[in-house]
Amino acid sequence: MNPLFINTFEAYGDAVRYRSSGPSNAAKYGAVGVMVRSQASNTDQHPHTGVTFYNAAFPKIPAVSISTAEANWLSELLQHKDVLEVGFTTHCKMENDTLSYNVIGEIKGNKFPDEIITVGGHLDSWDLAEGAQDDGAGCVQSIEVIRAFIATGLRPDRTVRAVLFMNEENGAGGAQAYFDSAIAKKENHIFALESDAGGFTPRGFSVTASDSQFRQLQKWLPLFIPYGLYYFKKGESGVDIGFLEKTGAALVGLEPDSQRYFDLHHAENDVFEAVSKRELELGAINMAALVWLVSKYGLN
Amino acid sequence: MNPLFINTFEAYGDAVRYRSSGPSNAAKYGAVGVMVRSQASNTDQHPHTGVTFYNAAFPKIPAVSISTAEANWLSELLQHKDVLEVGFTTHCKMENDTLSYNVIGEIKGNKFPDEIITVGGHLDSWDLAEGAQDDGAGCVQSIEVIRAFIATGLRPDRTVRAVLFMNEENGAGGAQAYFDSAIAKKENHIFALESDAGGFTPRGFSVTASDSQFRQLQKWLPLFIPYGLYYFKKGESGVDIGFLEKTGAALVGLEPDSQRYFDLHHAENDVFEAVSKRELELGAINMAALVWLVSKYGLN
Repeated sequence: MNPLFINTFEAYGDAVRYRSSGPSNAAKYGAVGVMVRSQASNTDQHPHTGVTFYNAAFPKIPAVSISTAEANWLSELLQHKDVLEVGFTTHCKMENDTLSYNVIGEIKGNKFPDEIITVGGHLDSWDLAEGAQDDGAGCVQSIEVIRAFIATGLRPDRTVRAVLFMNEENGAGGAQAYFDSAIAKKENHIFALESDAGGFTPRGFSVTASDSQFRQLQKWLPLFIPYGLYYFKKGESGVDIGFLEKTGAALVGLEPDSQRYFDLHHAENDVFEAVSKRELELGAINMAALVWLVSKYGLN
Repeated sequence: MNPLFINTFEAYGDAVRYRSSGPSNAAKYGAVGVMVRSQASNTDQHPHTGVTFYNAAFPKIPAVSISTAEANWLSELLQHKDVLEVGFTTHCKMENDTLSYNVIGEIKGNKFPDEIITVGGHLDSWDLAEGAQDDGAGCVQSIEVIRAFIATGLRPDRTVRAVLFMNEENGAGGAQAYFDSAIAKKENHIFALESDAGGFTPRGFSVTASDSQFRQLQKWLPLFIPYGLYYFKKGESGVDIGFLEKTGAALVGLEPDSQRYFDLHHAENDVFEAVSKRELELGAINMAALVWLVSKYGLN
């Protein structure tokens, strides 16, 4: 990952193609297997893995991720040796799909129960990771929004739903099912907020919405600045709530500080101990505040 | 520490008196020893220590810090027992002062070598801590400002000095000596920048300066926003550079994200491994940018 990007999600977006389409691109030129340097922002011994797409036009060759430390070591060797032999064994295979579920909790709105606000994260994690930051953090924060309302005795005017989406990592089937159900039930979705970028200190919000919805969100910015959130900007919101765009709902993604996320993303060191309680809670409580504002004033 | 403060330095400022003046306040009422709950933002097994002032009017009783986890355990026991006996042994003593030095490196200014810019952190750390965040981070960042100028081939118009101040933790003797030398040599100090709040993601700058100096700094804010620094605000700068206020120099403190600092501050877990390379570098390069702007345009 190019370290010169300030936001590491941009560096990831720039580098992820080496994993996602690298194997087929290598097979095109006759490769019999591929070892991909991990998309990671640090140097350590943990391989980071993730979605890989095979192009049916070329042989489906074995592909593995190696850690940044091991990739550096191989690069070093390649500079000093004319011939370097490397081998690997992989036991990866695709299992069949199995039945799983979104987990949903909601508080019915006091005045406008038919106007629905969704706040969510995703329940699954990538293979070898415990998934504490991706996306245990977002799940806990979404539950915390509901808990905070109950703890403070604040009853929202509009319905607030915490949704722990299943299967974000492998096709977003849970998000698709939630959207399909919303359409089938003719639900009125006005707003959705997703946390799926780690439980780090919140920096701002990324918004997919109409101009008038965006202007209304912007008016609330001064309320967030004392908590360290300095912007609403137009951009992507989240994979899971993205399906709801067709309902006309305003979609918002929490943007935490990105510096440490790709030290852990899709790797075995994405563990509970790597989450800062204060950082996690600061994100949760700002999510709760935004949900509260929309629940009280609506969003048109 | 009260967890409701968003900036943990405010929580520390609120709570530190229990350690700094707790022993004498307890001795006033007949205590023979004091165990102080650590000023820490998390719950773990590491005691955090720091400056304690004895009031000569009362007996100088032994005082120790205990970890937040152990303090919680004692509190729990106190709720269930009528009588609780606790003892401790301490071997603490004051050693004599010993000779030590500030470490200074500078690049002479191209056009105005007599106008001096100081960028610094402090070289010492509190007793039981390795001091990676407090303040190895600030030292490395200050050196990095000089290194960045050399690496990029940029020669500043004004003199830039990286100063690793000695003895910040126990009286700021190094800062005093640097100031005394500046006065004795009739040096012209125009600007000083300190990093002594950890090597975490930079959020903004805190400024002690005249209104005109502050307005000039504010004009540069748009240059920092793409790097995630959203404010210059009036406030304290740093213990070491604070001495320079009398010279008329504008003083600025780097303000990193504060959420994790007091998990580590003055405790044995303030180690190299707790520093994020990306977060540290992001602070350093924004320090270098601010120093560069002042070196080029001055500050009146």
